[in-house]
Amino acid sequence: MSHDKRTTDRQTPEGGTRVRDRIFKTARELFYRQGIRAVGVDDITSGAGTNKMSFYRSFSSKDELVAQCLRAQEGEYWTWWDEVIAPHAGNPRAQIEAIFDASARKARDVERCGCAISNAAVELRDDAHPGHAVIHEHKMEKRRRLRELAAAAGARDADALGDALMLLLEGSAATRLTFSDCETAPLCNALAGARALLDAQLAPPRAARRG
Amino acid sequence: MSHDKRTTDRQTPEGGTRVRDRIFKTARELFYRQGIRAVGVDDITSGAGTNKMSFYRSFSSKDELVAQCLRAQEGEYWTWWDEVIAPHAGNPRAQIEAIFDASARKARDVERCGCAISNAAVELRDDAHPGHAVIHEHKMEKRRRLRELAAAAGARDADALGDALMLLLEGSAATRLTFSDCETAPLCNALAGARALLDAQLAPPRAARRG
Repeated sequence: MSHDKRTTDRQTPEGGTRVRDRIFKTARELFYRQGIRAVGVDDITSGAGTNKMSFYRSFSSKDELVAQCLRAQEGEYWTWWDEVIAPHAGNPRAQIEAIFDASARKARDVERCGCAISNAAVELRDDAHPGHAVIHEHKMEKRRRLRELAAAAGARDADALGDALMLLLEGSAATRLTFSDCETAPLCNALAGARALLDAQLAPPRAARRG
Repeated sequence: MSHDKRTTDRQTPEGGTRVRDRIFKTARELFYRQGIRAVGVDDITSGAGTNKMSFYRSFSSKDELVAQCLRAQEGEYWTWWDEVIAPHAGNPRAQIEAIFDASARKARDVERCGCAISNAAVELRDDAHPGHAVIHEHKMEKRRRLRELAAAAGARDADALGDALMLLLEGSAATRLTFSDCETAPLCNALAGARALLDAQLAPPRAARRG
Protein backbone atom coordinates (compact mmCIF):
# COMPACT_ATOMS: atom_id res chain seq x y z
CA MET A 1 0.00 0.00 0.00
CA SER A 2 2.87 2.36 -0.77
CA HIS A 3 2.78 5.75 -2.40
CA ASP A 4 4.49 4.21 -5.42
CA LYS A 5 1.40 2.12 -6.05
CA ARG A 6 -0.85 5.12 -5.67
CA THR A 7 0.96 7.14 -8.30
CA THR A 8 0.64 4.35 -10.88
CA ASP A 9 -3.07 3.73 -10.30
CA ARG A 10 -4.25 5.51 -13.39
CA GLN A 11 -1.36 5.00 -15.76
CA THR A 12 -2.43 1.73 -17.41
CA PRO A 13 -5.52 -0.47 -17.70
CA GLU A 14 -3.60 -3.07 -15.67
CA GLY A 15 -3.08 -0.38 -13.03
CA GLY A 16 -6.86 0.06 -12.95
CA THR A 17 -7.37 -3.66 -12.40
CA ARG A 18 -4.72 -3.73 -9.72
CA VAL A 19 -6.21 -0.85 -7.81
CA ARG A 20 -9.66 -2.40 -8.08
CA ASP A 21 -8.31 -5.67 -6.68
CA ARG A 22 -6.57 -3.83 -3.88
CA ILE A 23 -9.75 -1.96 -2.95
CA PHE A 24 -11.71 -5.21 -3.06
CA LYS A 25 -9.24 -7.13 -0.91
CA THR A 26 -8.93 -4.32 1.61
CA ALA A 27 -12.69 -3.92 1.84
CA ARG A 28 -13.33 -7.62 2.39
CA GLU A 29 -10.74 -7.72 5.15
CA LEU A 30 -12.04 -4.59 6.89
CA PHE A 31 -15.72 -5.56 6.56
CA TYR A 32 -14.98 -8.95 8.05
CA ARG A 33 -12.82 -7.78 10.94
CA GLN A 34 -14.61 -4.55 11.87
CA GLY A 35 -18.12 -4.94 10.46
CA ILE A 36 -19.69 -3.55 7.31
CA ARG A 37 -21.21 -0.42 8.78
CA ALA A 38 -18.16 0.39 10.87
CA VAL A 39 -16.07 0.75 7.69
CA GLY A 40 -16.51 3.72 5.38
CA VAL A 41 -15.26 4.37 1.88
CA ASP A 42 -12.52 6.56 3.37
CA ASP A 43 -11.27 3.68 5.52
CA ILE A 44 -11.16 1.44 2.46
CA THR A 45 -9.37 3.87 0.16
CA SER A 46 -6.94 4.75 2.92
CA GLY A 47 -6.26 1.07 3.66
CA ALA A 48 -5.85 0.34 -0.04
CA GLY A 49 -3.53 3.30 -0.57
CA THR A 50 -5.81 4.93 -3.13
CA ASN A 51 -8.50 7.61 -3.26
CA LYS A 52 -12.23 8.09 -3.65
CA MET A 53 -11.98 8.80 -7.36
CA SER A 54 -10.36 5.40 -7.97
CA PHE A 55 -12.92 3.81 -5.69
CA TYR A 56 -15.89 5.12 -7.65
CA ARG A 57 -14.20 4.26 -10.94
CA SER A 58 -14.17 0.65 -9.73
CA PHE A 59 -17.45 0.40 -7.79
CA SER A 60 -20.66 2.32 -8.28
CA SER A 61 -21.31 2.44 -4.51
CA LYS A 62 -20.24 0.99 -1.19
CA ASP A 63 -23.42 -1.13 -1.21
CA GLU A 64 -22.44 -2.64 -4.56
CA LEU A 65 -18.94 -3.36 -3.23
CA VAL A 66 -20.48 -5.04 -0.17
CA ALA A 67 -22.62 -7.23 -2.44
CA GLN A 68 -19.59 -8.21 -4.52
CA CYS A 69 -17.63 -9.05 -1.36
CA LEU A 70 -20.49 -11.29 -0.22
CA ARG A 71 -20.62 -13.00 -3.62
CA ALA A 72 -16.88 -13.68 -3.43
CA GLN A 73 -17.33 -15.06 0.08
CA GLU A 74 -20.17 -17.28 -1.11
CA GLY A 75 -18.03 -18.68 -3.94
CA GLU A 76 -15.07 -19.39 -1.66
CA TYR A 77 -17.30 -21.02 0.90
CA TRP A 78 -18.64 -23.61 -1.58
CA THR A 79 -15.15 -24.25 -2.91
CA TRP A 80 -14.07 -24.94 0.69
CA TRP A 81 -17.15 -27.12 1.28
CA ASP A 82 -16.56 -29.19 -1.86
CA GLU A 83 -12.90 -29.72 -0.95
CA VAL A 84 -13.84 -30.81 2.57
CA ILE A 85 -16.40 -33.40 1.46
CA ALA A 86 -14.52 -34.68 -1.63
CA PRO A 87 -12.32 -37.22 0.25
CA HIS A 88 -15.50 -38.84 1.64
CA ALA A 89 -17.41 -39.23 -1.62
CA GLY A 90 -20.04 -41.95 -1.28
CA ASN A 91 -20.16 -41.66 2.53
CA PRO A 92 -22.55 -38.80 3.33
CA ARG A 93 -22.33 -39.29 7.09
CA ALA A 94 -18.55 -38.89 6.92
CA GLN A 95 -19.04 -35.84 4.69
CA ILE A 96 -21.28 -34.20 7.30
CA GLU A 97 -18.79 -34.96 10.07
CA ALA A 98 -15.97 -33.60 7.90
CA ILE A 99 -17.83 -30.29 7.51
CA PHE A 100 -18.18 -29.98 11.28
CA ASP A 101 -14.58 -30.97 11.90
CA ALA A 102 -13.22 -28.56 9.28
CA SER A 103 -15.49 -25.75 10.54
CA ALA A 104 -14.15 -26.16 14.07
CA ARG A 105 -10.58 -26.17 12.81
CA LYS A 106 -11.22 -23.04 10.73
CA ALA A 107 -12.78 -21.30 13.74
CA ARG A 108 -9.56 -21.85 15.75
CA ASP A 109 -7.83 -19.19 13.68
CA VAL A 110 -7.54 -16.32 16.16
CA GLU A 111 -8.57 -13.86 13.47
CA ARG A 112 -11.92 -15.52 12.75
CA CYS A 113 -15.02 -13.44 13.38
CA GLY A 114 -17.68 -16.04 12.59
CA CYS A 115 -19.50 -16.17 9.25
CA ALA A 116 -19.13 -13.06 7.09
CA ILE A 117 -22.51 -13.75 5.48
CA SER A 118 -24.40 -14.28 8.75
CA ASN A 119 -22.81 -11.13 10.13
CA ALA A 120 -23.91 -9.23 7.04
CA ALA A 121 -27.50 -10.38 7.68
CA VAL A 122 -27.37 -8.54 11.01
CA GLU A 123 -26.00 -5.36 9.48
CA LEU A 124 -27.97 -5.16 6.23
CA ARG A 125 -31.62 -5.08 7.28
CA ASP A 126 -32.94 -3.27 4.23
CA ASP A 127 -34.35 -5.80 1.74
CA ALA A 128 -33.40 -3.45 -1.08
CA HIS A 129 -29.66 -3.71 -0.31
CA PRO A 130 -27.94 -5.56 -3.18
CA GLY A 131 -26.25 -7.88 -0.66
CA HIS A 132 -29.56 -9.18 0.62
CA ALA A 133 -30.18 -11.64 -2.19
CA VAL A 134 -26.67 -13.08 -1.80
CA ILE A 135 -27.25 -13.70 1.92
CA HIS A 136 -30.61 -15.32 1.33
CA GLU A 137 -29.41 -17.55 -1.51
CA HIS A 138 -26.34 -18.62 0.43
CA LYS A 139 -28.29 -19.74 3.49
CA MET A 140 -30.96 -21.44 1.37
CA GLU A 141 -28.24 -23.36 -0.44
CA LYS A 142 -26.52 -24.34 2.81
CA ARG A 143 -29.81 -25.68 4.12
CA ARG A 144 -30.47 -27.53 0.87
CA ARG A 145 -27.05 -29.17 0.90
CA LEU A 146 -27.34 -30.29 4.52
CA ARG A 147 -30.80 -31.74 3.96
CA GLU A 148 -29.54 -33.48 0.83
CA LEU A 149 -26.59 -35.00 2.69
CA ALA A 150 -28.94 -36.08 5.50
CA ALA A 151 -31.20 -37.76 2.94
CA ALA A 152 -28.26 -39.44 1.21
CA ALA A 153 -27.13 -40.74 4.61
CA GLY A 154 -30.51 -42.41 5.03
CA ALA A 155 -32.00 -40.15 7.72
CA ARG A 156 -35.50 -41.03 8.83
CA ASP A 157 -36.43 -37.32 8.66
CA ALA A 158 -33.78 -35.76 6.44
CA ASP A 159 -35.23 -32.26 6.50
CA ALA A 160 -35.35 -32.16 10.30
CA LEU A 161 -31.83 -33.57 10.58
CA GLY A 162 -30.45 -31.20 7.95
CA ASP A 163 -32.03 -28.24 9.72
CA ALA A 164 -30.73 -29.24 13.15
CA LEU A 165 -27.24 -29.65 11.68
CA MET A 166 -27.58 -26.22 10.11
CA LEU A 167 -28.54 -24.69 13.46
CA LEU A 168 -25.45 -26.23 15.08
CA LEU A 169 -23.23 -24.75 12.36
CA GLU A 170 -24.92 -21.35 12.41
CA GLY A 171 -24.80 -21.30 16.21
CA SER A 172 -21.10 -22.13 16.11
CA ALA A 173 -20.46 -19.18 13.82
CA ALA A 174 -22.71 -16.87 15.83
CA THR A 175 -20.96 -17.62 19.14
CA ARG A 176 -17.49 -17.23 17.64
CA LEU A 177 -17.39 -13.48 18.28
CA THR A 178 -18.33 -13.83 21.95
CA PHE A 179 -16.37 -16.96 22.89
CA SER A 180 -13.05 -16.05 21.41
CA ASP A 181 -11.07 -18.91 22.98
CA CYS A 182 -11.90 -21.74 20.63
CA GLU A 183 -10.34 -24.39 22.85
CA THR A 184 -13.15 -23.87 25.37
CA ALA A 185 -15.96 -22.33 23.27
CA PRO A 186 -19.37 -23.98 22.83
CA LEU A 187 -18.46 -24.74 19.22
CA CYS A 188 -15.97 -27.34 20.53
CA ASN A 189 -19.02 -29.49 21.17
CA ALA A 190 -20.65 -28.98 17.77
CA LEU A 191 -19.18 -32.14 16.24
CA ALA A 192 -20.29 -34.25 19.24
CA GLY A 193 -23.75 -32.74 18.89
CA ALA A 194 -23.83 -33.49 15.18
CA ARG A 195 -22.78 -37.10 15.82
CA ALA A 196 -25.55 -37.54 18.37
CA LEU A 197 -28.10 -36.20 15.89
CA LEU A 198 -26.73 -38.50 13.18
CA ASP A 199 -26.83 -41.51 15.52
CA ALA A 200 -30.44 -40.76 16.41
CA GLN A 201 -31.55 -40.66 12.78
CA LEU A 202 -29.24 -43.10 11.03
CA ALA A 203 -28.45 -45.94 13.40
CA PRO A 204 -30.49 -49.06 13.05
CA PRO A 205 -32.47 -49.75 16.23
CA ARG A 206 -30.12 -51.21 18.82
CA ALA A 207 -32.19 -54.32 19.32
CA ALA A 208 -31.78 -55.13 15.63
CA ARG A 209 -28.03 -54.56 15.83
CA ARG A 210 -27.77 -56.76 18.90
CA GLY A 211 -29.78 -59.49 17.24
CA MET B 1 -44.29 11.52 20.26
CA SER B 2 -46.20 14.79 19.88
CA HIS B 3 -44.95 18.32 20.05
CA ASP B 4 -46.86 18.72 23.31
CA LYS B 5 -44.53 16.24 24.92
CA ARG B 6 -41.52 18.02 23.54
CA THR B 7 -42.45 21.35 25.04
CA THR B 8 -42.88 19.86 28.53
CA ASP B 9 -39.58 17.97 28.50
CA ARG B 10 -37.70 20.35 30.73
CA GLN B 11 -40.45 21.74 32.92
CA THR B 12 -40.36 19.22 35.79
CA PRO B 13 -38.12 16.44 37.10
CA GLU B 14 -40.88 14.00 36.12
CA GLY B 15 -40.71 15.44 32.61
CA GLY B 16 -36.99 14.64 32.62
CA THR B 17 -37.70 11.03 33.61
CA ARG B 18 -40.40 10.74 31.03
CA VAL B 19 -38.24 12.03 28.21
CA ARG B 20 -35.40 9.72 29.30
CA ASP B 21 -37.78 6.76 29.24
CA ARG B 22 -39.05 7.78 25.83
CA ILE B 23 -35.53 8.06 24.44
CA PHE B 24 -34.65 4.69 25.95
CA LYS B 25 -37.72 2.93 24.59
CA THR B 26 -37.32 4.47 21.14
CA ALA B 27 -33.63 3.57 21.02
CA ARG B 28 -34.20 -0.07 22.01
CA GLU B 29 -36.86 -0.44 19.36
CA LEU B 30 -34.79 1.19 16.61
CA PHE B 31 -31.57 -0.64 17.54
CA TYR B 32 -33.40 -3.95 17.46
CA ARG B 33 -35.29 -3.41 14.21
CA GLN B 34 -32.66 -1.54 12.20
CA GLY B 35 -29.36 -2.39 13.87
CA ILE B 36 -27.24 -0.41 16.32
CA ARG B 37 -24.93 1.26 13.83
CA ALA B 38 -27.72 2.06 11.40
CA VAL B 39 -29.39 4.26 14.01
CA GLY B 40 -27.90 7.61 15.00
CA VAL B 41 -28.66 9.96 17.87
CA ASP B 42 -30.69 12.10 15.46
CA ASP B 43 -32.90 9.13 14.55
CA ILE B 44 -33.49 8.44 18.22
CA THR B 45 -34.30 12.00 19.26
CA SER B 46 -36.51 12.42 16.23
CA GLY B 47 -38.33 9.15 16.96
CA ALA B 48 -38.72 10.10 20.61
CA GLY B 49 -39.95 13.59 19.77
CA THR B 50 -37.14 15.31 21.62
CA ASN B 51 -33.76 16.87 20.89
CA LYS B 52 -30.05 16.30 21.27
CA MET B 53 -29.83 18.45 24.38
CA SER B 54 -32.36 16.24 26.17
CA PHE B 55 -30.57 13.18 24.87
CA TYR B 56 -27.22 14.19 26.34
CA ARG B 57 -28.88 15.25 29.59
CA SER B 58 -30.09 11.64 29.90
CA PHE B 59 -27.18 9.67 28.44
CA SER B 60 -23.51 10.54 28.34
CA SER B 61 -23.11 8.97 24.88
CA LYS B 62 -24.78 6.71 22.34
CA ASP B 63 -22.39 3.93 23.41
CA GLU B 64 -23.57 4.23 27.01
CA LEU B 65 -27.20 4.16 25.85
CA VAL B 66 -26.45 1.02 23.81
CA ALA B 67 -24.93 -0.63 26.89
CA GLN B 68 -27.99 0.26 28.98
CA CYS B 69 -30.31 -1.12 26.30
CA LEU B 70 -28.35 -4.38 26.32
CA ARG B 71 -28.52 -4.56 30.13
CA ALA B 72 -32.30 -4.08 29.99
CA GLN B 73 -32.52 -6.81 27.33
CA GLU B 74 -30.42 -9.12 29.48
CA GLY B 75 -32.69 -8.57 32.49
CA GLU B 76 -35.87 -9.18 30.50
CA TYR B 77 -34.40 -12.30 28.94
CA TRP B 78 -33.77 -13.96 32.31
CA THR B 79 -37.20 -12.93 33.57
CA TRP B 80 -38.65 -14.62 30.48
CA TRP B 81 -36.43 -17.70 31.00
CA ASP B 82 -37.42 -18.06 34.66
CA GLU B 83 -41.11 -17.77 33.80
CA VAL B 84 -40.79 -20.38 31.07
CA ILE B 85 -39.09 -22.98 33.26
CA ALA B 86 -41.05 -22.29 36.47
CA PRO B 87 -44.04 -24.56 35.63
CA HIS B 88 -41.61 -27.48 35.19
CA ALA B 89 -39.69 -27.13 38.46
CA GLY B 90 -38.05 -30.43 39.38
CA ASN B 91 -38.09 -31.70 35.78
CA PRO B 92 -35.01 -30.27 34.08
CA ARG B 93 -35.62 -32.11 30.80
CA ALA B 94 -39.08 -30.54 30.57
CA GLN B 95 -37.52 -27.18 31.43
CA ILE B 96 -35.08 -27.46 28.54
CA GLU B 97 -37.84 -28.46 26.14
CA ALA B 98 -39.98 -25.56 27.39
CA ILE B 99 -37.17 -23.11 26.57
CA PHE B 100 -36.99 -24.44 23.02
CA ASP B 101 -40.74 -24.44 22.61
CA ALA B 102 -41.13 -20.90 23.97
CA SER B 103 -38.21 -19.65 21.84
CA ALA B 104 -39.82 -21.00 18.69
CA ARG B 105 -43.14 -19.42 19.63
CA LYS B 106 -41.45 -16.08 20.34
CA ALA B 107 -39.65 -16.24 16.98
CA ARG B 108 -42.99 -16.53 15.16
CA ASP B 109 -43.69 -12.85 15.90
CA VAL B 110 -43.24 -11.27 12.47
CA GLU B 111 -41.34 -8.39 14.02
CA ARG B 112 -38.63 -10.56 15.56
CA CYS B 113 -35.08 -9.96 14.35
CA GLY B 114 -33.31 -12.70 16.28
CA CYS B 115 -31.38 -12.07 19.49
CA ALA B 116 -30.64 -8.40 20.22
CA ILE B 117 -27.55 -9.38 22.19
CA SER B 118 -26.12 -11.70 19.53
CA ASN B 119 -26.77 -9.04 16.92
CA ALA B 120 -24.94 -6.51 19.08
CA ALA B 121 -21.92 -8.86 19.17
CA VAL B 122 -21.70 -8.53 15.39
CA GLU B 123 -21.92 -4.76 15.43
CA LEU B 124 -19.79 -3.90 18.48
CA ARG B 125 -16.37 -5.36 17.71
CA ASP B 126 -14.37 -2.99 19.88
CA ASP B 127 -13.62 -4.63 23.25
CA ALA B 128 -13.63 -1.18 24.84
CA HIS B 129 -17.31 -0.59 24.00
CA PRO B 130 -19.33 -0.52 27.26
CA GLY B 131 -21.80 -3.00 25.75
CA HIS B 132 -19.13 -5.65 25.30
CA ALA B 133 -19.12 -6.87 28.89
CA VAL B 134 -22.92 -7.21 28.86
CA ILE B 135 -22.80 -9.38 25.74
CA HIS B 136 -20.06 -11.58 27.15
CA GLU B 137 -21.70 -12.03 30.55
CA HIS B 138 -25.06 -12.79 29.00
CA LYS B 139 -23.76 -15.55 26.76
CA MET B 140 -21.60 -17.00 29.54
CA GLU B 141 -24.66 -17.12 31.79
CA LYS B 142 -26.79 -18.75 29.08
CA ARG B 143 -24.17 -21.41 28.61
CA ARG B 144 -23.88 -21.94 32.38
CA ARG B 145 -27.64 -22.33 32.78
CA LEU B 146 -27.94 -24.82 29.93
CA ARG B 147 -25.04 -26.91 31.23
CA GLU B 148 -26.58 -26.80 34.71
CA LEU B 149 -29.97 -27.96 33.41
CA ALA B 150 -28.24 -30.71 31.42
CA ALA B 151 -26.43 -31.85 34.58
CA ALA B 152 -29.63 -31.73 36.63
CA ALA B 153 -31.33 -33.85 33.96
CA GLY B 154 -28.63 -36.49 34.44
CA ALA B 155 -26.73 -36.05 31.18
CA ARG B 156 -23.74 -38.33 30.74
CA ASP B 157 -21.70 -35.32 29.47
CA ALA B 158 -23.61 -32.29 30.73
CA ASP B 159 -21.16 -29.72 29.39
CA ALA B 160 -21.26 -31.17 25.88
CA LEU B 161 -25.05 -31.43 25.95
CA GLY B 162 -25.47 -27.92 27.35
CA ASP B 163 -23.19 -26.53 24.65
CA ALA B 164 -24.95 -28.36 21.82
CA LEU B 165 -28.30 -27.07 23.09
CA MET B 166 -26.84 -23.58 23.20
CA LEU B 167 -25.66 -23.87 19.59
CA LEU B 168 -29.18 -24.90 18.51
CA LEU B 169 -30.66 -21.85 20.28
CA GLU B 170 -28.02 -19.45 19.00
CA GLY B 171 -28.36 -20.88 15.50
CA SER B 172 -32.13 -20.42 15.68
CA ALA B 173 -31.68 -16.76 16.57
CA ALA B 174 -28.97 -16.24 13.95
CA THR B 175 -31.08 -17.66 11.11
CA ARG B 176 -34.15 -15.67 12.11
CA LEU B 177 -33.15 -12.65 10.03
CA THR B 178 -32.60 -14.69 6.86
CA PHE B 179 -35.48 -17.17 7.11
CA SER B 180 -38.27 -14.79 7.91
CA ASP B 181 -41.12 -17.28 7.47
CA CYS B 182 -41.03 -19.07 10.80
CA GLU B 183 -43.47 -21.75 9.70
CA THR B 184 -40.82 -23.15 7.38
CA ALA B 185 -37.56 -21.86 8.86
CA PRO B 186 -34.78 -24.16 10.12
CA LEU B 187 -35.63 -23.11 13.68
CA CYS B 188 -38.87 -25.12 13.35
CA ASN B 189 -36.66 -28.16 13.79
CA ALA B 190 -34.74 -26.87 16.83
CA LEU B 191 -36.99 -28.57 19.38
CA ALA B 192 -36.80 -31.90 17.54
CA GLY B 193 -33.01 -31.54 17.48
CA ALA B 194 -32.93 -30.74 21.19
CA ARG B 195 -35.07 -33.79 21.96
CA ALA B 196 -32.75 -36.03 19.96
CA LEU B 197 -29.76 -34.66 21.88
CA LEU B 198 -31.58 -35.17 25.18
CA ASP B 199 -32.55 -38.73 24.24
CA ALA B 200 -28.96 -39.53 23.36
CA GLN B 201 -27.64 -38.34 26.70
CA LEU B 202 -30.45 -39.06 29.12
CA ALA B 203 -32.20 -42.23 28.02
CA PRO B 204 -31.12 -45.40 29.71
CA PRO B 205 -29.59 -47.85 27.20
CA ARG B 206 -32.42 -49.47 25.25
CA ALA B 207 -31.35 -52.97 26.15
CA ALA B 208 -31.74 -52.10 29.84
CA ARG B 209 -35.18 -50.61 29.21
CA ARG B 210 -36.25 -53.64 27.22
CA GLY B 211 -34.93 -55.99 29.91
